Amino acid sequence: MGVSSDALFLVPCTVPGETDDIPGIGQYDDFHTIDWQRDIARDRMHHRHIVKKRQDSVCDLIKGAHDAWSGWVCVLLVGLFTGAVAGVIDIGASWMADLKFGICPQAFWLNREQCCWSSNETTFDDGNCSQWWTWSEVLGQSREGVGPYIISYLFYIVWALVFAALAAALVRMFAPYACGSGIPEIKTILSGFIIRGYLGKWTLIIKSVGIMLAVSSGLSLGKEGPMVHIACCIGNILSYLFPKYGRNEAKKREILSAAAAAGVSVAFGAPIGGVLFSLEEVSYYFPLKTLWRSFFCALVAAFILRSINPFGNEHSVLFYVQYNNPWIFFELVPFVGLGIMGGVIATVFIKANLQWCRYRKTSRLGQYPVTEVLGVAVITAVVAYPNPYTRMNTSQLIYLLFSHDYNRNFTDVNSAIEIAAAGPGVYRAVWLLVLALGFKLVATIFTFGFKAPCGLFIPSLCLGAILGRIVGIGMEQLAYNYPHVWVFSGECSAGVNCITPGLYAMVGAAAVLGGVTRMTVSLVVIMFELTGGVRYIVPLMAAAMASKWVGDALGRQGIYDAHIELNGYPFLDSKDEHNGSLSVLTQDSMTVDDVETVLKETEHNGYPVVVSRESQYLVGFVLRRDLNLALGNARRTLEGICGQSLVVFTGGATAQQGGPPPLKLKKILDMAPITITDQTPMETVVDMFRKLGLRQTLVTHNGRLLGVITKKDLLRHIKQMENEDPNSVLFN
Amino acid sequence: MGVSSDALFLVPCTVPGETDDIPGIGQYDDFHTIDWQRDIARDRMHHRHIVKKRQDSVCDLIKGAHDAWSGWVCVLLVGLFTGAVAGVIDIGASWMADLKFGICPQAFWLNREQCCWSSNETTFDDGNCSQWWTWSEVLGQSREGVGPYIISYLFYIVWALVFAALAAALVRMFAPYACGSGIPEIKTILSGFIIRGYLGKWTLIIKSVGIMLAVSSGLSLGKEGPMVHIACCIGNILSYLFPKYGRNEAKKREILSAAAAAGVSVAFGAPIGGVLFSLEEVSYYFPLKTLWRSFFCALVAAFILRSINPFGNEHSVLFYVQYNNPWIFFELVPFVGLGIMGGVIATVFIKANLQWCRYRKTSRLGQYPVTEVLGVAVITAVVAYPNPYTRMNTSQLIYLLFSHDYNRNFTDVNSAIEIAAAGPGVYRAVWLLVLALGFKLVATIFTFGFKAPCGLFIPSLCLGAILGRIVGIGMEQLAYNYPHVWVFSGECSAGVNCITPGLYAMVGAAAVLGGVTRMTVSLVVIMFELTGGVRYIVPLMAAAMASKWVGDALGRQGIYDAHIELNGYPFLDSKDEHNGSLSVLTQDSMTVDDVETVLKETEHNGYPVVVSRESQYLVGFVLRRDLNLALGNARRTLEGICGQSLVVFTGGATAQQGGPPPLKLKKILDMAPITITDQTPMETVVDMFRKLGLRQTLVTHNGRLLGVITKKDLLRHIKQMENEDPNSVLFN
Repeated sequence: MGVSSDALFLVPCTVPGETDDIPGIGQYDDFHTIDWQRDIARDRMHHRHIVKKRQDSVCDLIKGAHDAWSGWVCVLLVGLFTGAVAGVIDIGASWMADLKFGICPQAFWLNREQCCWSSNETTFDDGNCSQWWTWSEVLGQSREGVGPYIISYLFYIVWALVFAALAAALVRMFAPYACGSGIPEIKTILSGFIIRGYLGKWTLIIKSVGIMLAVSSGLSLGKEGPMVHIACCIGNILSYLFPKYGRNEAKKREILSAAAAAGVSVAFGAPIGGVLFSLEEVSYYFPLKTLWRSFFCALVAAFILRSINPFGNEHSVLFYVQYNNPWIFFELVPFVGLGIMGGVIATVFIKANLQWCRYRKTSRLGQYPVTEVLGVAVITAVVAYPNPYTRMNTSQLIYLLFSHDYNRNFTDVNSAIEIAAAGPGVYRAVWLLVLALGFKLVATIFTFGFKAPCGLFIPSLCLGAILGRIVGIGMEQLAYNYPHVWVFSGECSAGVNCITPGLYAMVGAAAVLGGVTRMTVSLVVIMFELTGGVRYIVPLMAAAMASKWVGDALGRQGIYDAHIELNGYPFLDSKDEHNGSLSVLTQDSMTVDDVETVLKETEHNGYPVVVSRESQYLVGFVLRRDLNLALGNARRTLEGICGQSLVVFTGGATAQQGGPPPLKLKKILDMAPITITDQTPMETVVDMFRKLGLRQTLVTHNGRLLGVITKKDLLRHIKQMENEDPNSVLFN
Repeated sequence: MGVSSDALFLVPCTVPGETDDIPGIGQYDDFHTIDWQRDIARDRMHHRHIVKKRQDSVCDLIKGAHDAWSGWVCVLLVGLFTGAVAGVIDIGASWMADLKFGICPQAFWLNREQCCWSSNETTFDDGNCSQWWTWSEVLGQSREGVGPYIISYLFYIVWALVFAALAAALVRMFAPYACGSGIPEIKTILSGFIIRGYLGKWTLIIKSVGIMLAVSSGLSLGKEGPMVHIACCIGNILSYLFPKYGRNEAKKREILSAAAAAGVSVAFGAPIGGVLFSLEEVSYYFPLKTLWRSFFCALVAAFILRSINPFGNEHSVLFYVQYNNPWIFFELVPFVGLGIMGGVIATVFIKANLQWCRYRKTSRLGQYPVTEVLGVAVITAVVAYPNPYTRMNTSQLIYLLFSHDYNRNFTDVNSAIEIAAAGPGVYRAVWLLVLALGFKLVATIFTFGFKAPCGLFIPSLCLGAILGRIVGIGMEQLAYNYPHVWVFSGECSAGVNCITPGLYAMVGAAAVLGGVTRMTVSLVVIMFELTGGVRYIVPLMAAAMASKWVGDALGRQGIYDAHIELNGYPFLDSKDEHNGSLSVLTQDSMTVDDVETVLKETEHNGYPVVVSRESQYLVGFVLRRDLNLALGNARRTLEGICGQSLVVFTGGATAQQGGPPPLKLKKILDMAPITITDQTPMETVVDMFRKLGLRQTLVTHNGRLLGVITKKDLLRHIKQMENEDPNSVLFN
């Protein structure tokens, strides 16, 4: 097009954000949606201002450099603190979890593994060494036998109860936001919503302590989701050190995205997976330039955690595996089968969990959160102890299920050559695993969503790993007993095992986790980083795809979206439904009193400004909050402003003859609101809201204002399209 | 906001894409920019139509299922074909490269490695076995000596010349688009530009054959960039099997993004890196749902290639490394140093290469492309042969430089324990490496951009690997000779080597490649997948960051962006600069003749439609192409349409008394053009163009049309802001 309109923009134009002189402008109320475009425009104005001033003095130059580097410094700090906090949590949780079984009398602050390091014994009995005393030994009993078993059982239950009670009580007393996994809320916050205190310092402290306690209590939960929440708290708190991020909600979310990546990174030792998780799952606005910064943040956090080395092993990955056999092509069939089973289990879990959460909300159960946690903890502990698979730490169980050699010694302890023939030990193990699978599924349904910190990744992985190991053992026996069936021939020779049950466990874990969270690329990458299994991407992918498709077919949503919907985040003026005439302001014909009446009578977040009520030609948009602040400010500081003063949004001074001086509010008027025409297809509108992060858009027809569409309207409309109740949307 | 405008959208609204009845509408001319929003809206209409029709009959149900699955089927096919073509190229290139040195007389179709497989000899002399005859042996000479050396030298040069000549001649004769790396052009195409034939079947065939020849000729180039181009050709060709993608340029780019990921995936055996490369580097419009599909595509391609197993080794990674020593914290200093050096070398390379490319364009050299290729090939061959490091394949050299043990046997062949003491062999190797570094740098400057297929990844990696290995050897000697300096103490004990020069080579390679391409996350992930070195992400990241910062400080652009700018993609109507009055159409007061006059006198891509010339209230936007087609169509098919017929863009039938019937063109009018106000800050405009993929936007003030901003205007404006010549933008 030849008609260049460049000239329109070469003069720096007025942006509402420039008006930092009125205090509070540019911030938002609690439970409100932020306006991304406005915040980003404010940041740009700020940046332009700094670049311009940089030539003025050395001080300004330093300020400019500080501003330019603050993003990197901030994510560096976030990475450092996240890694350190994660290290503390890992060490504390491992110590407290071992406290359920016994104590190190020489140095009580050591966990079982550390306590046994000084031991020279080469064979451990169940991981116990003579330095480590079980509670029955502490009470003067022997280690084995019926009496010691009962003592251990009781101690296990009591400790579980104490830890769970502490976790629930701390959450209830100091930081109610510290409960749950936090990922649904963080998704909501990153999509541009304000929840004050959700990422505050109290939440950080209580969630850190609470997750240690909750994990140690042996409940069916993991610390991975809460770790993301903790990292985001750190990101939020540290962002206040840098005004560029702390004072701008849109920019702050860049830091929060990086922090979420760091959270996953420390939870699994998977920095690449963390960045992809942040990109795919939680982030809403993710400019590619922050990709690099998020990766840096995730890597720093992982590096710090590795330096602290809480697990005390050489590998930086959580469940390091090394298999000797490659997988054979035919195995894709059972892998896809595992994916399908994983999808089904995940759907059952999601539906049952939602049902229970809904019951909790509507019944009297919701009024006794601590009691509920205690009840779940007692039942979990009582049922878990007798089964060795559920008695141990969940992540330890996953490690054993993934590993190549576990269960082998059930068949033939003394044989150096692995043989795959099933002995009675294998049959016993399979039975115990089936019981463990059922128990974990039921326990997790009742656990996820109660009022203590609880993550879902580890239980999901565990369910899948048990399922996969069972299928793997079955396949192994099949290949061992029928090595000449065509599908195995060529790969398996008689008597030698060619099937790796540990790989099945890994694939099954990916399948269930994928079904529950509906993650895709990030899931495969996390599993790959978690286990270091470069060669097994194809099986992981096959299972993840099958599981996602089955999950999508059986139930529309992943657990996080379902919980976002369930919680109907958060309640605010849903009564605001008077579908009457459009509330608008005119550019130069309303008095202060008129404007205040409009503000009093309506509760909208903002008002379009038009040329006149008759013509309705759109001039701009002004926010309720800014208007309130500006009016209050004017009444306090400007002389001669009274109820009869004209409110003028235009530039020219239209002084009234005789009357009071007009109140000029052009500086709070956003003269560049995003507008659409009434013919815009709904999908394009949704697209614009999503991509530009809008809070509202104005609808025009041939230049005249027709109406306003807000994010809430849009969400309602989407609900209606999906045949759901539009009134369940309570966002604003 | 209470005023819900949902009702506006509940009736399916008219979208220009619905008018598939006029043939050709919805397509674009060569060298034009596509309109993403319009194409996506068309796809949605199409989808809605299919979903609605699905209930009608079984046939429609099958059609619906086909439509739903076509994306997955298409990327599956793209993955399969890309993997297969890559396998063929790898096998062919390796055979032809070995042909420079000799032949397998028993089976001429085997390369040296395959030829030697049947040999029982355990020690190879330079990789040669007795089954493999060097050319001097074929001619009846011995293997060693002056005479055989000269014969081998001559054969090396002749073969290099033959291969290079064939590659250049094929490109010149059959597919001029097959030259170069292709990545700058693919970036341009994916940003929404049409270059007909660039991704066609002839380009595919010639580029596949040409890259085999060019790599074999020993020129300083790699096959990785061209592999991306080849994959995109496959994606483009296969997308025509699926009308949903083949007939919709915006949707087709989803397939092309996936294909680019598959290209990187097969080039490096790095599926995750491929997806991130596509996301970070080449793709413009990358909805997250295609992330998963791209990953699938990349993985299928990698899997097929691995099944073909062209390298004949067990590892699926190209340069598999396994180091015994972890890196020590102090080493971050030399790693960052390597990053800085890498950034400097990359900047030197980019500037010199651009200078040379500019000279080629302006001088008579550009008229003799085949001669130029031949000249470069002869000089490369003559200089490369004497130095054993440059004589071998570039990727083989990189492998040796990365590996742990190479160069060790220069010091002490018989010692089983590795010792780090430098012998004369090491000094000789360092000298040869320095020479190789200089030669490779100069050769690549003259190679990249000439008229044969050539990629830049392998030469960049090679430059960096040589640099890194030299630094690594230096560090090793330092640690060996001064093991008690504090930085080494604690980690290094006397006489034992604790520094791994191979790791330095890897880090250096990442640094130079990062400096040249300015890749970030994808670079680290590719290097990580390429080498399988999980533990070395932190050093890789440190070097990549340093290199990128140094590169950005010294020269603004990466090589691809520089080449996009250099080529000024592509020339079209830059005369179109009459900055006169706005060309608009009115909604119901112009005749067919008036419209045709406007079409004849102006060359805009589209015209705003307004209520009337006086009021200028905006109604919609109509594309030049659609208008031309609709007018032509009307004249051919509708009776009574003549020059005096009114052209009516409104819905109501405003029949003229007595006059000819009006031509109703409401169906080609886009009634939902994206508009902005004249107060919108430039950055927001840029943001909207980028995120929504706009081709133009209309500027209004209080509802009145003020002007049009096109992508070209925007690019010009950005240039002007950066103090560059705005006339270098030739896009449209």
